[in-house]
Amino acid sequence: MTDSTTGHRRRGRLLIIGGAENRTCGTGPLETFVRLAGDAAARVVVVTTATEIPEEVTAEYTAAFGRLGVTAVRELRLLGRAAADDPGVLDALEEATGVLFSGGDQSRIRTLVGSQTNRLLRRRLEEDGLVIAGTSAGATAMGHWMILGGKGHEVAASTVRVGPGLALMDNVLIDMHFLERGRLPRLLSGIALDTRLLGVGIDEDTAIVVGDGAFEVVGSGLVTVVDAERATVGYAAGDDEPMAMLHVDLHMLPAGCRFDMDRRRPVIGRRPGEES
Amino acid sequence: MTDSTTGHRRRGRLLIIGGAENRTCGTGPLETFVRLAGDAAARVVVVTTATEIPEEVTAEYTAAFGRLGVTAVRELRLLGRAAADDPGVLDALEEATGVLFSGGDQSRIRTLVGSQTNRLLRRRLEEDGLVIAGTSAGATAMGHWMILGGKGHEVAASTVRVGPGLALMDNVLIDMHFLERGRLPRLLSGIALDTRLLGVGIDEDTAIVVGDGAFEVVGSGLVTVVDAERATVGYAAGDDEPMAMLHVDLHMLPAGCRFDMDRRRPVIGRRPGEES
Repeated sequence: MTDSTTGHRRRGRLLIIGGAENRTCGTGPLETFVRLAGDAAARVVVVTTATEIPEEVTAEYTAAFGRLGVTAVRELRLLGRAAADDPGVLDALEEATGVLFSGGDQSRIRTLVGSQTNRLLRRRLEEDGLVIAGTSAGATAMGHWMILGGKGHEVAASTVRVGPGLALMDNVLIDMHFLERGRLPRLLSGIALDTRLLGVGIDEDTAIVVGDGAFEVVGSGLVTVVDAERATVGYAAGDDEPMAMLHVDLHMLPAGCRFDMDRRRPVIGRRPGEES
Repeated sequence: MTDSTTGHRRRGRLLIIGGAENRTCGTGPLETFVRLAGDAAARVVVVTTATEIPEEVTAEYTAAFGRLGVTAVRELRLLGRAAADDPGVLDALEEATGVLFSGGDQSRIRTLVGSQTNRLLRRRLEEDGLVIAGTSAGATAMGHWMILGGKGHEVAASTVRVGPGLALMDNVLIDMHFLERGRLPRLLSGIALDTRLLGVGIDEDTAIVVGDGAFEVVGSGLVTVVDAERATVGYAAGDDEPMAMLHVDLHMLPAGCRFDMDRRRPVIGRRPGEES
């Protein structure tokens, strides 16, 4: 939205959650979402495209947001391109201060890629202060590319399948339930496809808050960053054959850590303006 | 053993296997072990201290070595310090060209630490050409410190428990079944205890052959190396609280890759003496 005091456009925030965020006691990533989206005045849309149990998921989030003081919660199911291009849907999204993509199967989110909904979200994120969150399947969909699946546990071509994402964030490949499910090989296999991609693996009940070319970690787990931009990658002949990756820069970031995505490095020390 | 042509002492080799090595068709790590230990002339001792099913394990290795042409295979069970200091046991180990530590529970191997068996193995490895292999539990025991267990999946103090190992290799912390069991957090938690330790995570059916300050990878999976010597470690207040590790140097090494442990970096390019 336009800043009411200055009239300037302002960028929104992305909140990318590794799944299984605490929905009971109201702490952690969801609390951050509500704070960013306007506290009690927030108008939240839950997009349940990814899940096969949308009623359950909507009820759970409605209750969680209710405990955090937010009463304006609306579900958009968006099960196909027609829905994602529907003017009524677009109106609902224009009204929102926060949009949350639920978990489920990220393959189901592909129907939204390039839709009017996708365009609106991108525009309102860039210039209208919208807060967009994605958890689990909804998290990986935030990137330009999203991880769709894969098999095996080695760093190898067949370990990862990627497809176009909602492109709300560039140059990043997101994976989730990260250390819980031992997904380092999948994320490394993904960034080996294009080493300009920064690999970001987010644990459960943990999130990154993205804005202004940097992110900050919130929640109870770790965010793993793998940066292969200056690494040596030895691609293998076969798709199932393990590949070499030498000198990957690895960072494990708990809550409070910040990462500069433009300079591809953690920010050490206090933030500008913070007191000593 | 002393080299018969020159009379010079010669260093042996360590073969550290990530567990579940192929014992059926005779390829991979066990084949490397037999080749290093003298092919058909090898005299192999299998140390079954770690396992609760020593008869089964011995029968399996005896059959596997038989298929590789080795008939001189003997089991040493070594269930306590008295056995590990027994002169008959030491004689048997003096005769061996290769010693293999089986998998099981590495806590059971603690009884051997500092024993006469331990001293003999270290001496014969350093100056008498002995080949010593360890798989799974037997792998982590090779180090100065060994990983005994731990809990949870974050990088945190409580994620790893370590204890003294057989010290056949310095400055290295070994973990096994590595990518299969998602053990990056455990290994990182271990090297955070002493960042001079090089973390080496070995996949199943995969091994490192160690000698002359370097190792080479053999087998079907990957070896993960994490080097935190120049990393920034932010220790957490609580044992279960995730910690920060910034700029860890990460390497994923398939078969054929070599790693210089003294310089702490992969060796790129061909080996000295190799043809162009």
